[in-house]
Amino acid sequence: MINVTVWNEGRHEKASREIREVYPEGIHGAIASIFKDCEGINVRIATLDDPECGLPDDVLYTTDVLIWWGHMHHHEVPDELVEKIHGRVLAGMGFIALHSAHASKPFMKLMGTSCTLRWRDDDRERLWTVAPRHPIAKGIPQYFELPNEEMYGEYFDIPKPDDLIFVGWFKGGEVFRSGCTFTRGYGKVFYFQPGHEQYPIYYNETVRRILYNAVLWARPDGQYPPLSCPNTEPLEK
Amino acid sequence: MINVTVWNEGRHEKASREIREVYPEGIHGAIASIFKDCEGINVRIATLDDPECGLPDDVLYTTDVLIWWGHMHHHEVPDELVEKIHGRVLAGMGFIALHSAHASKPFMKLMGTSCTLRWRDDDRERLWTVAPRHPIAKGIPQYFELPNEEMYGEYFDIPKPDDLIFVGWFKGGEVFRSGCTFTRGYGKVFYFQPGHEQYPIYYNETVRRILYNAVLWARPDGQYPPLSCPNTEPLEK
Amino acid sequence: MINVTVWNEGRHEKASREIREVYPEGIHGAIASIFKDCEGINVRIATLDDPECGLPDDVLYTTDVLIWWGHMHHHEVPDELVEKIHGRVLAGMGFIALHSAHASKPFMKLMGTSCTLRWRDDDRERLWTVAPRHPIAKGIPQYFELPNEEMYGEYFDIPKPDDLIFVGWFKGGEVFRSGCTFTRGYGKVFYFQPGHEQYPIYYNETVRRILYNAVLWARPDGQYPPLSCPNTEPLEK
Amino acid sequence: MINVTVWNEGRHEKASREIREVYPEGIHGAIASIFKDCEGINVRIATLDDPECGLPDDVLYTTDVLIWWGHMHHHEVPDELVEKIHGRVLAGMGFIALHSAHASKPFMKLMGTSCTLRWRDDDRERLWTVAPRHPIAKGIPQYFELPNEEMYGEYFDIPKPDDLIFVGWFKGGEVFRSGCTFTRGYGKVFYFQPGHEQYPIYYNETVRRILYNAVLWARPDGQYPPLSCPNTEPLEK
Repeated sequence: MINVTVWNEGRHEKASREIREVYPEGIHGAIASIFKDCEGINVRIATLDDPECGLPDDVLYTTDVLIWWGHMHHHEVPDELVEKIHGRVLAGMGFIALHSAHASKPFMKLMGTSCTLRWRDDDRERLWTVAPRHPIAKGIPQYFELPNEEMYGEYFDIPKPDDLIFVGWFKGGEVFRSGCTFTRGYGKVFYFQPGHEQYPIYYNETVRRILYNAVLWARPDGQYPPLSCPNTEPLEK
Repeated sequence: MINVTVWNEGRHEKASREIREVYPEGIHGAIASIFKDCEGINVRIATLDDPECGLPDDVLYTTDVLIWWGHMHHHEVPDELVEKIHGRVLAGMGFIALHSAHASKPFMKLMGTSCTLRWRDDDRERLWTVAPRHPIAKGIPQYFELPNEEMYGEYFDIPKPDDLIFVGWFKGGEVFRSGCTFTRGYGKVFYFQPGHEQYPIYYNETVRRILYNAVLWARPDGQYPPLSCPNTEPLEK
Repeated sequence: MINVTVWNEGRHEKASREIREVYPEGIHGAIASIFKDCEGINVRIATLDDPECGLPDDVLYTTDVLIWWGHMHHHEVPDELVEKIHGRVLAGMGFIALHSAHASKPFMKLMGTSCTLRWRDDDRERLWTVAPRHPIAKGIPQYFELPNEEMYGEYFDIPKPDDLIFVGWFKGGEVFRSGCTFTRGYGKVFYFQPGHEQYPIYYNETVRRILYNAVLWARPDGQYPPLSCPNTEPLEK
Repeated sequence: MINVTVWNEGRHEKASREIREVYPEGIHGAIASIFKDCEGINVRIATLDDPECGLPDDVLYTTDVLIWWGHMHHHEVPDELVEKIHGRVLAGMGFIALHSAHASKPFMKLMGTSCTLRWRDDDRERLWTVAPRHPIAKGIPQYFELPNEEMYGEYFDIPKPDDLIFVGWFKGGEVFRSGCTFTRGYGKVFYFQPGHEQYPIYYNETVRRILYNAVLWARPDGQYPPLSCPNTEPLEK
């Protein structure tokens, strides 16, 4: 059983009728619905305004893959929670950072870089698969289109990805490394660019398939040793 | 002109005559001496107990490459200074983390991982060059030996290096990814494992050559754009 | 169903009673026995002296993962067969090169390098896992030992691996990148160093587990588009 | 002194007045002119129709960096010459494959993949720098435009690059990994996509700067050990 927790800031949905119309269930509901009928996957949702930001210890410490969507309120996520999330990733929890989560505290702490990029509303994207054998690319076509998306453009200040899976083409002339993987401790991290709140991107079938693949890829597959600095005996006499 | 600053915790030298005998100039003096007669390189030293930890703004903001040796007092480096160092690396300053600096605040912040490893005193190391065309490996032989060195062993919890340059063999049976590079923002980072304080490792000619190569490799070679998230106009009509 | 074909030169077994005593079933039989009771895996064996080297089209074109052990007779593998194997890998067939197969025609063609290394009989190896989250490392301990093994030492002239999974420590003082992955076309390639014919290495439980993991990792998971250079219409008007 | 040899098929220039008007000196002359006034660089040109394809031993074995432009006549390059070029790269000679050289024999042999891609005439490209600290990107802006260029599009069947430096955006909707590095043996390889013969791309200042940077990056910086499989004595008793 893979326990997925979908964390969404959840403020756009409260503030804007337009966003509620795009996402009646919230962005978190839309993403969680990917997994609702999946045998072997149990999904929970959490938002910033839930008690303990929806991630009390009994949720966070039983989460196998944490999916994160945040945008305008990264600063409201308590540093103490960010530390716990970071520790969970190092211990093996998968972390999937979506769209504006590039600027979230957990993602930035895991990356160690500024995670900055250029952006513009009202664009259109075509994502190309450049690592077709990567598990996250399973069943994903050579390219797919998002008729409406916010442009994210290079230079994207991330560490060199372990693997670059998708490259985005934007109508306005930019490109972006739209699907990147990293390993931190025993945890697997996937950054996926699509997901501006104004468009029903998380209902797009290809996006949903990618997130499904990413959960299978990122989930821990066992117990990992503690990360510590033991003083060890020689293995040779 | 490359401005190098060699930062050393400097506490071992104060506390232990044995260490003072190995490093009469301090670890910082030994490393700084690599560059003393190099045309085009200006070297300064800094220690934890200097005013502002030896890194007041007028030093830190004119440093091109910061070399860091710390061991038992990482916690005494103020978080505010760590933030500034991190910002300087993202802006282009090179950062060379030596030996026990794997657990330093600046290195851990740049990596986003626990940076843990296993260890043991009183071992012997042979470092093998596995990326002979890397600039840091220039003029370095296929292998070289450190007759006395503390063992650092895998699993070394770092992100996957951009490049793995040296792999260490230890008499006690362990291996270690002893020379690893990373890019963070516009800054280049090199982690180099050798350097236990009890042995005159920084007087070893091959180690000195590697640090010289690393400074040339890590130094910024121009001014870089600010890292920000600008809202940009389309490049296409 | 994953169709695995285990290809072994098979000459040592014919020439040497000592090797027959280590591998009564041949190296190919020992490796094939890993998969004999695996649901979902069908294993075949092939040797150099079989008709068409054991890889007639009806076998090669129905093989999902080809495991290759060769040593002294690489030159006897016909170039025409090597071309077919190469084409199959590009089309998605997994390829696992074992031990002395570093110098095999198929592996060298896939790598584009000399694949040279240093070597010596009568050594002992300890392999360390440096990518614990890689699928090939699933269930594999932090390190494991081969009490008798031929030393393979750096500098191993391969392209930079996509992932470095295992690093070997040898008693005689050398290290080696003992487990490396590559992608070629739609095919996945794993080079695994252990396997000198004089020792029952392919009966070692950890080695067997690694080969099992590698087959699951390397197998194609669908049909892939043909690799060609099509002249395509614009996707934008 | 860096000895650069610029090799161009040279057939377009002979067959087409249109191409001669774009490149009166030939593509080779245009590229060679980048280096004509560079202190420390000596440039020679060579074409397919020269004796021994312009690469007799006394030229090939004194070349530090070989730049290669070929398109419709890859098959006319003798296999024996390709073997020598391959050997020279492994021994340390830099190799820069330009544009349609993706399908050249030397490049394909070095890659071990099909090197296929999709293409279309009459497009426009904007190249984005995604590895701004790479030596090849020195002095190169965040993006630059080629008002006329043939589209090369993903999926580009190359091994995972050691470094991805440039990503191309094409007006027709495609993206391409337009600047990629690899190491083969002791040799450095750079693939650079721009350069359709119908447009004066090699007179573009940014392209010329990139090729200059690439020569400095790719040149051998010493003598390298022979690549062989020596039987070595233990380094430990």
